[in-house]
Amino acid sequence: MIKGITRAGIGQAGSLEDFVRLASRYGFGAVDAGGGELEAWISAAGAERVNERLREQGVQIGSIGLSAEWRHNEEKFREGLHRLVKDAEAASQLGVTRCCTYVLPSTDYPAARFMAVATRRLRTCAEILEAYGIRFGLEFVGPHHLRTRWANPFIWDIPTTLDWIGAIGKSNVGLLFDAYHWYTSEAGYEDILKLDARQIVHVHINDARDVPVAEALDNDRLYPGEGVIPLTDFLRGLQAIGYTGVVSQEILTPQPLTAPAEELFAKSQQAFAKVFSAAGLE
Amino acid sequence: MIKGITRAGIGQAGSLEDFVRLASRYGFGAVDAGGGELEAWISAAGAERVNERLREQGVQIGSIGLSAEWRHNEEKFREGLHRLVKDAEAASQLGVTRCCTYVLPSTDYPAARFMAVATRRLRTCAEILEAYGIRFGLEFVGPHHLRTRWANPFIWDIPTTLDWIGAIGKSNVGLLFDAYHWYTSEAGYEDILKLDARQIVHVHINDARDVPVAEALDNDRLYPGEGVIPLTDFLRGLQAIGYTGVVSQEILTPQPLTAPAEELFAKSQQAFAKVFSAAGLE
Amino acid sequence: MIKGITRAGIGQAGSLEDFVRLASRYGFGAVDAGGGELEAWISAAGAERVNERLREQGVQIGSIGLSAEWRHNEEKFREGLHRLVKDAEAASQLGVTRCCTYVLPSTDYPAARFMAVATRRLRTCAEILEAYGIRFGLEFVGPHHLRTRWANPFIWDIPTTLDWIGAIGKSNVGLLFDAYHWYTSEAGYEDILKLDARQIVHVHINDARDVPVAEALDNDRLYPGEGVIPLTDFLRGLQAIGYTGVVSQEILTPQPLTAPAEELFAKSQQAFAKVFSAAGLE
Amino acid sequence: MIKGITRAGIGQAGSLEDFVRLASRYGFGAVDAGGGELEAWISAAGAERVNERLREQGVQIGSIGLSAEWRHNEEKFREGLHRLVKDAEAASQLGVTRCCTYVLPSTDYPAARFMAVATRRLRTCAEILEAYGIRFGLEFVGPHHLRTRWANPFIWDIPTTLDWIGAIGKSNVGLLFDAYHWYTSEAGYEDILKLDARQIVHVHINDARDVPVAEALDNDRLYPGEGVIPLTDFLRGLQAIGYTGVVSQEILTPQPLTAPAEELFAKSQQAFAKVFSAAGLE
Repeated sequence: MIKGITRAGIGQAGSLEDFVRLASRYGFGAVDAGGGELEAWISAAGAERVNERLREQGVQIGSIGLSAEWRHNEEKFREGLHRLVKDAEAASQLGVTRCCTYVLPSTDYPAARFMAVATRRLRTCAEILEAYGIRFGLEFVGPHHLRTRWANPFIWDIPTTLDWIGAIGKSNVGLLFDAYHWYTSEAGYEDILKLDARQIVHVHINDARDVPVAEALDNDRLYPGEGVIPLTDFLRGLQAIGYTGVVSQEILTPQPLTAPAEELFAKSQQAFAKVFSAAGLE
Repeated sequence: MIKGITRAGIGQAGSLEDFVRLASRYGFGAVDAGGGELEAWISAAGAERVNERLREQGVQIGSIGLSAEWRHNEEKFREGLHRLVKDAEAASQLGVTRCCTYVLPSTDYPAARFMAVATRRLRTCAEILEAYGIRFGLEFVGPHHLRTRWANPFIWDIPTTLDWIGAIGKSNVGLLFDAYHWYTSEAGYEDILKLDARQIVHVHINDARDVPVAEALDNDRLYPGEGVIPLTDFLRGLQAIGYTGVVSQEILTPQPLTAPAEELFAKSQQAFAKVFSAAGLE
Repeated sequence: MIKGITRAGIGQAGSLEDFVRLASRYGFGAVDAGGGELEAWISAAGAERVNERLREQGVQIGSIGLSAEWRHNEEKFREGLHRLVKDAEAASQLGVTRCCTYVLPSTDYPAARFMAVATRRLRTCAEILEAYGIRFGLEFVGPHHLRTRWANPFIWDIPTTLDWIGAIGKSNVGLLFDAYHWYTSEAGYEDILKLDARQIVHVHINDARDVPVAEALDNDRLYPGEGVIPLTDFLRGLQAIGYTGVVSQEILTPQPLTAPAEELFAKSQQAFAKVFSAAGLE
Repeated sequence: MIKGITRAGIGQAGSLEDFVRLASRYGFGAVDAGGGELEAWISAAGAERVNERLREQGVQIGSIGLSAEWRHNEEKFREGLHRLVKDAEAASQLGVTRCCTYVLPSTDYPAARFMAVATRRLRTCAEILEAYGIRFGLEFVGPHHLRTRWANPFIWDIPTTLDWIGAIGKSNVGLLFDAYHWYTSEAGYEDILKLDARQIVHVHINDARDVPVAEALDNDRLYPGEGVIPLTDFLRGLQAIGYTGVVSQEILTPQPLTAPAEELFAKSQQAFAKVFSAAGLE
């Protein structure tokens, strides 16, 4: 598995180029980024030079976020496809093979209709991404408070997300598997073993406060090893099924972190060292 | 448009062969049947002889019902595929190009997950039917009392069913468009004009009691022209968009009808004559 | 059916706005255009104003051409998707519901592999177009000389193109049905009757010189009624199956036509009048 | 990787139950079988008892062959779907997750049209298999003499088969990767490294005579380690990309082998031991 980092949990890390340099310095092999950041860097330096820099630093772009807005009306969705194609183009120039989006566990739209519409829209996104050799990860979101945040319950666990992936029906669609959502959807080690590594597109790691699981808040996460998520099980499970991709830290917090990026990167590096070593990795 | 008849509303009409003979005598050009009935007749008389009889009587098989059970668990669904293939085989031997299923407007399953699972299952059915040149019609069900009959609201109107058809994503899937459901989903003439005839796989006709639309019961239908559904608009709308397929009478009743089939066929014939002529057809 | 016109056969007709004005003056209800032309006009006048003009002139945009290059390597294909999204956006702003591409009957690529790759690529295009409510027409190309123009035979007739459409597997894909290709693929009236209007996305009309069919050249076409194509059969067949869309004139010629556009429009108008009236239309 | 065996290369091994017992005795963890064999055994002993036997012997069913005939006309194809559903049912009762078919490198049908038709048919098969949780492997066939055996060249190598899998567009379709075809299509170690283990559904192992590669005959194969195929590269490549599935021996011979099954099983066991150990496996 490749240690990865997102901007959630490392404060102000500057431009993508700076972010990559810091990631490399603190032992990370991948960063997650926005498509717009990739385009800006390519536009400034040229794809060849960017690839060279990534190689020098030993850092890959783990995943980009999906820019198309599939959660609202058709007009908004169509508007985003243009940007999706540009993002996919930029990503493919840098050898990025992952793009991800999250799925909220409730919705103000009628649930069945929203599922039908979203199935079609995400298939369109998957089709476009596939044309650029990019896999598409769907992140189910487990925290209980979000299940009633909007009017109608939607989906929030592994089996349902797999059912949805089956409905979308595209080979390049799989899970963004996040430790926080695995934990808050009350899945365990055995549930990971039921997966095939083929079904996992990307992984997020983080930790949860020592409160009843139903009270864990989505935007109040801890660094790996600081909380109660059984991350040893999480990582051993992924290892057992043969997952060899990126595991990216994502720490959502109530307020933006103000500590210097270097400090937060160092903290993250230690967090990874702790949980990876506890799981017998590296 | 071709006048068609189902067994709902004509009492005991005997074997499929008898049913076809009666349909022909009372001016119908199509009957809806079960796949098992087709197989039994083919098995008894041979496909060639059955086709000869249908030609002699000037009656086609309008549509068969979907035998696969897609509404429950995976095991039940798989069990039904075997029968679906047999039905499709029999149907294709008799030149039948339509198969339909109805969709209840509420479900005890969580709605979003059920939509995802049902999308995949119905795609599988569509794929099998397509191999035999058969189109697949989904019948949304409008009566309000059924929307709360089970725990979670599902879907019950034209736009949502079209969204679902988009999610399924197969060319051969379209609407079974039933006058009762058009009426109880409170759609009108303009809503038919928004459709393309390509989107309609099959049509049901019937009528509703003069009660507030929200109180019309699914299994308490009248013969065309006896009630308050604006069937002239219904038929003119279908005509306007170029629908040329079968329009089959389907009269669900609280109790099985006990009058002789001949009497009910005659009543049906008159009902069709009345509403078709009011719509300026034939 | 709606009389339509393309730029092939009317010389220099100026900007799209001029082209539309001339089309209207000479009795046409539709013009085919390039996506870039739509964007330029929208960009200059705003979509609302363009739609107003189209309404005033009683002219719709029948179809746009597919801008993505699906016939060469993967890189070129990807480059074109960006433009395809922009074209589709512009088209949807003007209510255009058709986009078409032609299929050459031979290829320098190995035929089976090219078919596999092209199937995937055209599915991606269809998926993008579908997001904008646009149907996608594939134009098989019949002239015999082109079947051996490149190293390996590809496809050039109705049944094979329908097989291909089945392989692509998207609901919004159908035929661009061109009279010249119908004639040179040696199909007849009966072959049109076997089609369902649902399968036809767009129609081209033109005529062929009185030479043996195997010698008819793709770029040496005549105006409707000037040659030997049985256009009465062609139009009656389309009428019989319920086709109600646009029939666009497309006259490919060895040299660009130098006569004034007004003269060629007048000639086209008379040509349509002649063949439509012979077929009992209008 | 799991050592597997097919009936090709072990003579007369009796019933499937006998075959499994012998496989177990000679150190194999998987056998390939026909769907009919599974049905017969289940029908005689019941699925539960069969599963118990397989567990006792430590043998799984690696893959079943595709019974549906997709290479000829539509009628034949449809006839086979019935059997395919029965095979898939039986397979799923025994936990079998693989079904495979081979693809001849030339065809008497026009190549492009055959590709289009076969794409649709194999998608239907994939869809049915998917309903039973079964993956579908396509075996490209490399020997040069078969490329001109029928009138038109079709496909015979990895990249083209992957293109085809993309055209089919179903998540559960991948390669049956056979050492003989890898070798005769002149692919090497590097070509395996370009694959993702996700793309491989099943593997066959065997060896080739020391003749120029273009002269290696499809039905004249040797046991692993007896010939010139660099099986160490083959197995190391599979290992490197993380393939953990079954590797089944398949030895096609000009004449049926007459030696006792025990002898041929022993020979196969030694062959596996030799090549696995040379590759540093087990």
